[in-house]
Amino acid sequence: MPAIARPLAAEFFGTMFLLIAVVGSGIMAERLADGNMAVALLANAIATGAALVVLITILGPLSGAHFNPAVSFFFALRGKIEWRMAVRYGLVQIVAAIVGVWLTHLMFAMPVLEVSTRLRDGPPQLLAEFIATLGLLATIAGAIRFAPSSTPMLVGLTITGAYWFTASTSFANPAVTLARALTDSFSGIAPVSAPGFIAVQFLAAAIAAPALKWLFAEAASA
Amino acid sequence: MPAIARPLAAEFFGTMFLLIAVVGSGIMAERLADGNMAVALLANAIATGAALVVLITILGPLSGAHFNPAVSFFFALRGKIEWRMAVRYGLVQIVAAIVGVWLTHLMFAMPVLEVSTRLRDGPPQLLAEFIATLGLLATIAGAIRFAPSSTPMLVGLTITGAYWFTASTSFANPAVTLARALTDSFSGIAPVSAPGFIAVQFLAAAIAAPALKWLFAEAASA
Amino acid sequence: MPAIARPLAAEFFGTMFLLIAVVGSGIMAERLADGNMAVALLANAIATGAALVVLITILGPLSGAHFNPAVSFFFALRGKIEWRMAVRYGLVQIVAAIVGVWLTHLMFAMPVLEVSTRLRDGPPQLLAEFIATLGLLATIAGAIRFAPSSTPMLVGLTITGAYWFTASTSFANPAVTLARALTDSFSGIAPVSAPGFIAVQFLAAAIAAPALKWLFAEAASA
Amino acid sequence: MPAIARPLAAEFFGTMFLLIAVVGSGIMAERLADGNMAVALLANAIATGAALVVLITILGPLSGAHFNPAVSFFFALRGKIEWRMAVRYGLVQIVAAIVGVWLTHLMFAMPVLEVSTRLRDGPPQLLAEFIATLGLLATIAGAIRFAPSSTPMLVGLTITGAYWFTASTSFANPAVTLARALTDSFSGIAPVSAPGFIAVQFLAAAIAAPALKWLFAEAASA
Repeated sequence: MPAIARPLAAEFFGTMFLLIAVVGSGIMAERLADGNMAVALLANAIATGAALVVLITILGPLSGAHFNPAVSFFFALRGKIEWRMAVRYGLVQIVAAIVGVWLTHLMFAMPVLEVSTRLRDGPPQLLAEFIATLGLLATIAGAIRFAPSSTPMLVGLTITGAYWFTASTSFANPAVTLARALTDSFSGIAPVSAPGFIAVQFLAAAIAAPALKWLFAEAASA
Repeated sequence: MPAIARPLAAEFFGTMFLLIAVVGSGIMAERLADGNMAVALLANAIATGAALVVLITILGPLSGAHFNPAVSFFFALRGKIEWRMAVRYGLVQIVAAIVGVWLTHLMFAMPVLEVSTRLRDGPPQLLAEFIATLGLLATIAGAIRFAPSSTPMLVGLTITGAYWFTASTSFANPAVTLARALTDSFSGIAPVSAPGFIAVQFLAAAIAAPALKWLFAEAASA
Repeated sequence: MPAIARPLAAEFFGTMFLLIAVVGSGIMAERLADGNMAVALLANAIATGAALVVLITILGPLSGAHFNPAVSFFFALRGKIEWRMAVRYGLVQIVAAIVGVWLTHLMFAMPVLEVSTRLRDGPPQLLAEFIATLGLLATIAGAIRFAPSSTPMLVGLTITGAYWFTASTSFANPAVTLARALTDSFSGIAPVSAPGFIAVQFLAAAIAAPALKWLFAEAASA
Repeated sequence: MPAIARPLAAEFFGTMFLLIAVVGSGIMAERLADGNMAVALLANAIATGAALVVLITILGPLSGAHFNPAVSFFFALRGKIEWRMAVRYGLVQIVAAIVGVWLTHLMFAMPVLEVSTRLRDGPPQLLAEFIATLGLLATIAGAIRFAPSSTPMLVGLTITGAYWFTASTSFANPAVTLARALTDSFSGIAPVSAPGFIAVQFLAAAIAAPALKWLFAEAASA
């Protein structure tokens, strides 16, 4: 098997499990929360953050643990990975994210194929996604610069927090956005809302690349 | 006393406390949650994860801190422990798990001997247990490979998350499954549902052993 | 000032803040929880665990960060501190715990002097305190043996978990028990119930000392 | 660009995101909590703590990650930074905090300019802010002394806990207090209540400086 099989398998496994965590905990939470959506979002946020810490720790050394086309795009812009690899990563992430949603539906005895009806529209939501993606990339860039072994924990905490402090609950990931368009449950997003989210996520990555390069430049080391 | 006394005592103490954590927090949560089962599951998930981090940290150096026959089976398949030891571990884990449930019932002023009436049946539940066990073993194998000192934290986070994102709330442990058949409280499982869970847990371990051997092979080190 | 001033100040400051954390978060939680006592206990457990991690980290190097006469008694039994010092620690812990409760009452605009009316009686509660204290001391002894720098985190997680999985919500501390008899709020304990709790806590320490000495003996190191 | 640009940018970015975390999670929580304010405060506390851990880790090496004029004042009193720098930090923190509130309002589709109507008055609230600020500064001073790499986690845990155990929910930060006067949402404070909070926060810093200098003196190292 070529040497690329292992990193692609790691991206597949990690992105698939990330979607199981996001969508599965959302379904479980909505079923149990008795209408109190704050409790549901708290469970959703804690389960997602916990899964991210684990997946990034065990798969990071194999593939970098992007699980996110905007992150792969950001690293390609910064020259840390080849563009060809970023494209491969992105395709695997999208397929894995969809598989993750379908497995989750099977586990929860729901129809495999669904389409979300949950609109997430308007400039405030897009601003929220911009801030969410910028925050995620700043966490990654800052962690790599100053505390690389804490990267998994810091990314997990960022997402757990951002579920609450961004108005969009922080998708910040084009593959996750696409796949969540395919579930009509708590964490879904209507297909009509997805393109705006995805465009803003890539835009944030394009702006973050030079800005964070300056902020976390090696020469600034204390 | 033979040298084997200490690791077996560690498996006993750890598995017993794990069941106290799972079943006890489930009882406390159900009593206080006023019908909001999402709050109950959140408490159950946090208390179990916290207990696992502690127990694996302090007992891991003595016995490996399996507390789980599927984990002992997985390590025997991988050639990390002898089969004879795996059997001994499994027997101690089962006895300790049951003692843990009984102590919990005594603490909460319930009848010591109970049988669960909570059905957890059907292919979706079995798929959930397969995913839960695979996720747990991937966490353990990946942690040992890339971040051994973080293993306790990563296992705790996996279980806290998997309570939410697997449809079965993630038993992923044959000894725990057997013992939870003996409590008619929040975390119970009807005896008729237990064999399916246990079979799938061992099946997942059998499939995980070669798959994770490839994914986390030494040669793939970055 | 004699060299003993700093450790005694550390025990005072830490025990006082521990009681502020326990009693204060209990009052805040009860006021806001709208009758859902599971949410209240979750907040109480998280706030107490968080405070313990911080207090043990910053004060441990000064005094050992016992904040607990049963812990000081345990270390005296194990020959780690002098009996005279254990007595001094115990007296400071009791005074500081009471000061902490009174400051909390002042912050929450309650009468400074109160007496709890919350009965916590019967053998199941005493069994719960035995298990809680044994678990706390096993955490401390195991952490010191195998992961000393993680001791603060492990103690915090143990208490956060034990709020849920012991039927008594895990007092496990004679000074805390005495002081909580002086608040008629969520975390109180009626004075008539306190002596039983305290007796069992010391009993657990007396039994834990030799048992944990064997389990965590140096020769057993892996 | 002068060498001071990077630390000031770090203080700006960090303080802005801190306010997004505090105010944004408060708005989201209040909207979803269905009247159960304990659930709302729990989400608020967890999101704020998570954000602090991340921001202090990635920005601490650039600016010290004060995000708080009382902290800059404390370090100036202790002679760790120049007074001129403390003033610059304070001004940047105030502007960034206000920008953070305004961005949050934009994300949540609220009027940008608001004024809080939530009174937080009286001696008990002021005592709470005194204890909150003293606790925060003790955490910082103790962490720097004994566990510098854990400082971000310890500060995050202190604030998550103090949301619950101080009666004021622990502002402990003059820039945060000013900015929260400009939001009429869950986390707001009426402008008439702000000066008292701010005065007590600086008073606590003035008292903490010599007290903590003694408690954590180098000579006391174990």
